[in-house]
Amino acid sequence: MTTNCYNSPMSVEHIHAVPHLTTALSGPLQEIEEHLLKHQTHIEQWFRGQWQATRAPFYASVDLRNAGFKLAPVDTNLFPAGFNNLNPSFLPLCTQAVQFAAEHYCQHASNVILIPERHTRNQYYLENVASLVNILELAGFNVRVGSLSEDQSGPEHLQLPSGRTLTREPLSRDGNRLRIGDFNPCFVLLNNDLSAGRPAILENLEQPVVPPLNMGWSNRLKSDHFAHYRRVVVEFAKLIDVDPWLMDPIFRRCGKIDYMKREGEECLTRNVTEVIDAVQVKYDEYGIDQQPFVFIKSDSGTYGMNVMVVHNASEVVALNRKQRSKMARGKEGADITDVIVQEGVHTFETWGSDQAVAEPVVYMIDHFVVGGFYRVHADRGVHDNLNAPGMHFEPLAFVESGAACDHSKAPNADPNRFYAYGVVARLALLSAARELASSDDIS
Amino acid sequence: MTTNCYNSPMSVEHIHAVPHLTTALSGPLQEIEEHLLKHQTHIEQWFRGQWQATRAPFYASVDLRNAGFKLAPVDTNLFPAGFNNLNPSFLPLCTQAVQFAAEHYCQHASNVILIPERHTRNQYYLENVASLVNILELAGFNVRVGSLSEDQSGPEHLQLPSGRTLTREPLSRDGNRLRIGDFNPCFVLLNNDLSAGRPAILENLEQPVVPPLNMGWSNRLKSDHFAHYRRVVVEFAKLIDVDPWLMDPIFRRCGKIDYMKREGEECLTRNVTEVIDAVQVKYDEYGIDQQPFVFIKSDSGTYGMNVMVVHNASEVVALNRKQRSKMARGKEGADITDVIVQEGVHTFETWGSDQAVAEPVVYMIDHFVVGGFYRVHADRGVHDNLNAPGMHFEPLAFVESGAACDHSKAPNADPNRFYAYGVVARLALLSAARELASSDDIS
Repeated sequence: MTTNCYNSPMSVEHIHAVPHLTTALSGPLQEIEEHLLKHQTHIEQWFRGQWQATRAPFYASVDLRNAGFKLAPVDTNLFPAGFNNLNPSFLPLCTQAVQFAAEHYCQHASNVILIPERHTRNQYYLENVASLVNILELAGFNVRVGSLSEDQSGPEHLQLPSGRTLTREPLSRDGNRLRIGDFNPCFVLLNNDLSAGRPAILENLEQPVVPPLNMGWSNRLKSDHFAHYRRVVVEFAKLIDVDPWLMDPIFRRCGKIDYMKREGEECLTRNVTEVIDAVQVKYDEYGIDQQPFVFIKSDSGTYGMNVMVVHNASEVVALNRKQRSKMARGKEGADITDVIVQEGVHTFETWGSDQAVAEPVVYMIDHFVVGGFYRVHADRGVHDNLNAPGMHFEPLAFVESGAACDHSKAPNADPNRFYAYGVVARLALLSAARELASSDDIS
Repeated sequence: MTTNCYNSPMSVEHIHAVPHLTTALSGPLQEIEEHLLKHQTHIEQWFRGQWQATRAPFYASVDLRNAGFKLAPVDTNLFPAGFNNLNPSFLPLCTQAVQFAAEHYCQHASNVILIPERHTRNQYYLENVASLVNILELAGFNVRVGSLSEDQSGPEHLQLPSGRTLTREPLSRDGNRLRIGDFNPCFVLLNNDLSAGRPAILENLEQPVVPPLNMGWSNRLKSDHFAHYRRVVVEFAKLIDVDPWLMDPIFRRCGKIDYMKREGEECLTRNVTEVIDAVQVKYDEYGIDQQPFVFIKSDSGTYGMNVMVVHNASEVVALNRKQRSKMARGKEGADITDVIVQEGVHTFETWGSDQAVAEPVVYMIDHFVVGGFYRVHADRGVHDNLNAPGMHFEPLAFVESGAACDHSKAPNADPNRFYAYGVVARLALLSAARELASSDDIS
């Protein structure tokens, strides 16, 4: 057999590299990466066992923060938007994983109703919906997009910047089956985090609703998720013999907060102090010369709203009326009463010549990592929440790494970094899977 | 949420396009493609059901011929080489599919022994083995490469052109468990087509041998495969309402051929005439102004040896001694006695400015299409077997198609073509799966 060793038609200079990581603080991170790589088969075997014990959610995205000395998830989204931001070369990976994920819902049928956020005309979000439709169609499903708006009487055709058209149609119900006209799906895929509550039209359906209604933000608490995550990381850290803190942000929760009436403020200041003190102990242990800080976030909800960065408890007391008002209102107007105080993980990744701060976001379908990108924000600092207007996205290019004809045997930093990202993201995914399984038990 | 619609860092001009297809004859092919695309969800649903009824082989590659008016598999390899020729961007797809394929062999363990062809020092083949090792490792397995050579006493380190090192080690047996030293695998992956017979050391193992020994060429017949394929295509063609011939090469078989003694020559000439006549009827039906031809191949075996192109029966009678001698000897010296006479499918795809003829090769792991390339041969004609010295490979770039931000809504010819390739390749894969299931029944 005569063949030529293959050279990629996509030469390396056309591929964005991994963002620059401040190396001064990368000691412990290299330690994590080293551990993860050294134990790779062990880790993959462990994950195989975990996915057999607990079914993975249909899909998820996980926001990570890479502090150089610590790599941790800060948000796990079970209704991920942003599929339009994935590198197009991830499309086959998404398609293959969707085939796997959907196989057991649609054994003898192929119709899916996708339910996105309601009322939105946000073009970027609608591009995400169009990308999901595309992935499902490539995986061999008929997809129609249902609208939860009760005032919608006919199909609505939305023109998108990409040139695609998205058609949103009114849902109807035939007994306990959800339909769009005579289109009868085998499952209903939610891309709506149900911040506004559980829509009656989706209750008690014969068809599976995926993810289930009780994983919406009207039922779910971030603190539940991170409690599961903590247990997952403790098990995992034992497996590979590392300090779980290197992957786990410390947190506390407070219920019954009323920012306007200043109720629950004592719980908040106490917990801010406790978390900051606990982080300081760890910083001292590792010789990290940084100031600890915390995020105060709504315990339910998403979209980067109601997030505040605080370096000490006095800042909570000193909040002005406008800041309080901003923290008090959730998405679709829900009041914020439960709050999570979470260790802030610095972002020591920067992108481009303007040193914009960056955080990786990893996408998973079923138990497979299918892509990711960097959320980049030129106007934010290393402590800030980057999920804010002005951010943009840089796709991760890790597919091109590990070429079949790799002429160097030197370990490549990029795939190693991405492997670590994939592992930590899957730990968060596993936590969500357990959260889902335990919510199934009680629902 | 503020995001940017993503633009690929890999601009289109850096990606090889699909080879040029002679368009004059593409009428019926467009008809197949149209049918396949129109029925895509139906087809995918049908495949889902098929894979639930019949487990897919661990991996396979399928050689296709695209005649413009006809698209058909000409060879299905259950021990595929050439993973080193895949576009490196397919690596995550391969890894994900291997995780899926291997999951149920290794639930609580992670060790795999890979058994390649024996004795070979062919650098291209060894690169393929190194690529397979890489894919398995990325999927989270510990892999060691076992040697079937009985005279090997210790590990052998092979330096490859890519800079990689491949280590081949002697196998040992501990009762009914195969080992390399104290390395105890959960399954044994064969990349050896067993043309030389079933090695005793692999018989009656506790561990699964994948694919099973009776799928080696010492047991398997091409005519069995194509008989299964014919039945699969008849079912499938009914589903999408096309003439099965458009995807199915006509064939006959002859046993007991002795080229040197000219035994069985009458069977051969009769079958050549029958196949050519049957093809002529189809050519007349579709108004195809081409001369029918057939391939005469060994009914078992691979590697493009013992293949002859014939335009009429008299050429069989007129074979000279050298040609007879070439046809009479198989790989590793096996005598050729069973022969398949198969409709030749013209290659109307050409590559590059020198119009080199090209044929697509599609790679699958489990039931997923994971990549492919074009086998290109500048010195061969449209009727010839391209699996011959002088061939080279051009990776298929179909991953970049169907970008998330597709600004045109026009149907793109490339992904359509690749979809058709993927469907026909999976029909061949399904035939191999049924072949495997029926060989399980009788073994």
